[in-house]
Amino acid sequence: MINNIYKFPAKTDWENLIERPVLEGKNLRNFVQDIFTEVKQNGDSALKSYSEKFDGVKIEKFLVSKDEIEIAEKEISEDLKNAIKQAKCNIFKFHNSQQQEINKIETQPGISCWRESRGIENVGLYIPGGTAPLFSTILMLAIPAKIAECKNVILCTPPQKDGKINPAILFTAKLCGIEKIYKVGGSQAIAAMTFGTKSIPKMDKIFGPGNQFVTAAKELAVETGVAIDLPAGPSEVLVIADALANPEFCAADLLSQAEHGADSQVIFISTDENVFEKTLKEIKVQIEKLPRNEIAKKALENSRFILLDSIESALDFSNQYAPEHLILSIDNPENYIDSIINAGSVFLGNYSPEAAGDYATGTNHTLPTNGFARNYSGVSLDSFVKKITFQNLSEIGLKNIGKSVELMADAEGLFAHKNAVSLRLKFLENGI
Amino acid sequence: MINNIYKFPAKTDWENLIERPVLEGKNLRNFVQDIFTEVKQNGDSALKSYSEKFDGVKIEKFLVSKDEIEIAEKEISEDLKNAIKQAKCNIFKFHNSQQQEINKIETQPGISCWRESRGIENVGLYIPGGTAPLFSTILMLAIPAKIAECKNVILCTPPQKDGKINPAILFTAKLCGIEKIYKVGGSQAIAAMTFGTKSIPKMDKIFGPGNQFVTAAKELAVETGVAIDLPAGPSEVLVIADALANPEFCAADLLSQAEHGADSQVIFISTDENVFEKTLKEIKVQIEKLPRNEIAKKALENSRFILLDSIESALDFSNQYAPEHLILSIDNPENYIDSIINAGSVFLGNYSPEAAGDYATGTNHTLPTNGFARNYSGVSLDSFVKKITFQNLSEIGLKNIGKSVELMADAEGLFAHKNAVSLRLKFLENGI
Repeated sequence: MINNIYKFPAKTDWENLIERPVLEGKNLRNFVQDIFTEVKQNGDSALKSYSEKFDGVKIEKFLVSKDEIEIAEKEISEDLKNAIKQAKCNIFKFHNSQQQEINKIETQPGISCWRESRGIENVGLYIPGGTAPLFSTILMLAIPAKIAECKNVILCTPPQKDGKINPAILFTAKLCGIEKIYKVGGSQAIAAMTFGTKSIPKMDKIFGPGNQFVTAAKELAVETGVAIDLPAGPSEVLVIADALANPEFCAADLLSQAEHGADSQVIFISTDENVFEKTLKEIKVQIEKLPRNEIAKKALENSRFILLDSIESALDFSNQYAPEHLILSIDNPENYIDSIINAGSVFLGNYSPEAAGDYATGTNHTLPTNGFARNYSGVSLDSFVKKITFQNLSEIGLKNIGKSVELMADAEGLFAHKNAVSLRLKFLENGI
Repeated sequence: MINNIYKFPAKTDWENLIERPVLEGKNLRNFVQDIFTEVKQNGDSALKSYSEKFDGVKIEKFLVSKDEIEIAEKEISEDLKNAIKQAKCNIFKFHNSQQQEINKIETQPGISCWRESRGIENVGLYIPGGTAPLFSTILMLAIPAKIAECKNVILCTPPQKDGKINPAILFTAKLCGIEKIYKVGGSQAIAAMTFGTKSIPKMDKIFGPGNQFVTAAKELAVETGVAIDLPAGPSEVLVIADALANPEFCAADLLSQAEHGADSQVIFISTDENVFEKTLKEIKVQIEKLPRNEIAKKALENSRFILLDSIESALDFSNQYAPEHLILSIDNPENYIDSIINAGSVFLGNYSPEAAGDYATGTNHTLPTNGFARNYSGVSLDSFVKKITFQNLSEIGLKNIGKSVELMADAEGLFAHKNAVSLRLKFLENGI
């Protein structure tokens, strides 16, 4: 189970250690392309036949009714409702704090420049069904969408075999103000939001996790001009622990990542041999109690357990790996923040487990995986808006840069660009 | 030349009017894929043979030497140098104003959340060669990259037949602090920055315009995990003019877009028949004087000239079209800002020609084309950074949300997530 142990590896070996497990080249593109073509051509009737084929259920009406939502509300315990509400409150606070005031800059006298945010008008959220109903992801996507004032926010999620949707999903969606919830899943749901059908409107941007079919479908959606949240990849955590770390906590954090999926990757780096060995032992103890331990065991096979000589080395390794989640179970973690260059979300100290951020601290759990923390940010309020630039030049403003624009346009061989300024400058000379 | 005139079209006809010219399905993917495979396998030697084949020149050393840059500096007029410097100053001011202070939020007592920006470490800029040396695009990309503190910023641009690079490109790159300029162009340059070669380092994100080969190459780069600035499409402007607009200026603005390329699209909407007719006449006069009038004439064939009954209708049309550039040549344009939902960059009033923003107001000219203003922002400082989220929970903080996290993890069937919190809560109960 834990075979990948590396004690003080040479820097030249790091290149191999930061490698992700290679995903099998699953050739789903043609399969999903056929579904896209079918949904584009036949709309709702294609969706119905895919629901029957893939979800094993006949769906007459995709839109979840108000009655269904009311019934769902009664099926959830008050405790869970309150937990979801508490999480919502924190996620709202953090994402609302990401709003930016308009900042008008006078770059030169008479030239005023600024940006304004506008919510993306049509935003589609995809929430997978299956064994683990990810209602927490609804919070992560719907709350910033509402803060951004996106005009239409819809949710697609696959029906259970009985034609119903998990009540926690319905409750959370309603709590977040989503009025349109559709019983449709898989790549056909992504196709529906890409092209629009009679029941399901066409979207500008699609968010949310999913299996390999959904991932392939989101890639196809991008090719037709729909934006998506992030490129997909298996989830991962990197834990750095010094002598003051608690091996029990470290093991639990590593396992909470490992249980996500057999393709998850966990990396454990310690600067202390005692904590290192104890954590390995503790993993073996804790894993046996997990209902999803078969998954977690497979994930551990993809994983790495590394002893390094200093926190600086550990962070150097982490920056090269660019983890989705980074946990610093070390003394005074604040001192090392400036050294963190590539990571999705960072958890500081012994009382900041990844699970807290996955659900309720307020930060977003939709994060760049698979090394994308090098070149992408996680989902935030920014993901739901476009920023439009504005400029307003007075007569003085145009006079101030007119000559420069003429010269530059001329040097780039764009005479009409030059002329647009020259005509105005001439008019101002003669007119004023 | 101007055939597409529509007077007060019914709203039901708008769907056709907002359609972009359909791009011919150029099947370049396989062609560019071969170049990628070749560059990945053979590195510099592949680049050399492509330079010989496509650019007609043997390149021994891709890196531009300091001597070459010094010589280039002498070949540029002082006037042009000063113009570029003035533009740089404005672009710096506007993009520097986009820096955000760290904003720590306590979502609940003991739970602190915030985001910090980090420059993307390896940023590659691509600047096309050919007839129009787009040195202005270097300003638009290199200035925010430097503000973002990107560690390595390199530039690739194709060599001329004599093996040299246009001096304005070299001067501007040096002015912006780019030290590594490589003489390599086309899709092979994008492949080099995607995989890295002996001479040219692998990049995390690639920016910049290019022809259809470069565009196809950027799409392939994305598939291998490299980020890019924006999806590509032909450039476009939408001008809205009321009775107070100046037809001469409107015509010049429309033509400055039309001269970009035969596939450019310009849309002219007026609420005043007199201004409408005069602008059409003025276009016919001005176009004859343009060196690039063959290109502009072709672009006008893709274009639309529309009379509508109100500014509100015009903005409604514009939002549906989602133009890259929107010029409001109307009385009190400020009054209409809130109605603008989908646009890349907006130019307010009679003295704000698009050309001013293309070069020197300070705003960025790398903008979403082809309707992507619905779901993408233009390039800004944000494009060069990742925002990492941080969270720090004190013991009190974890106690405050621990129960909620346990309940939610349990409801999602993720027991190890729950356990990561339970173990800590137990420790705190016993320990404190």
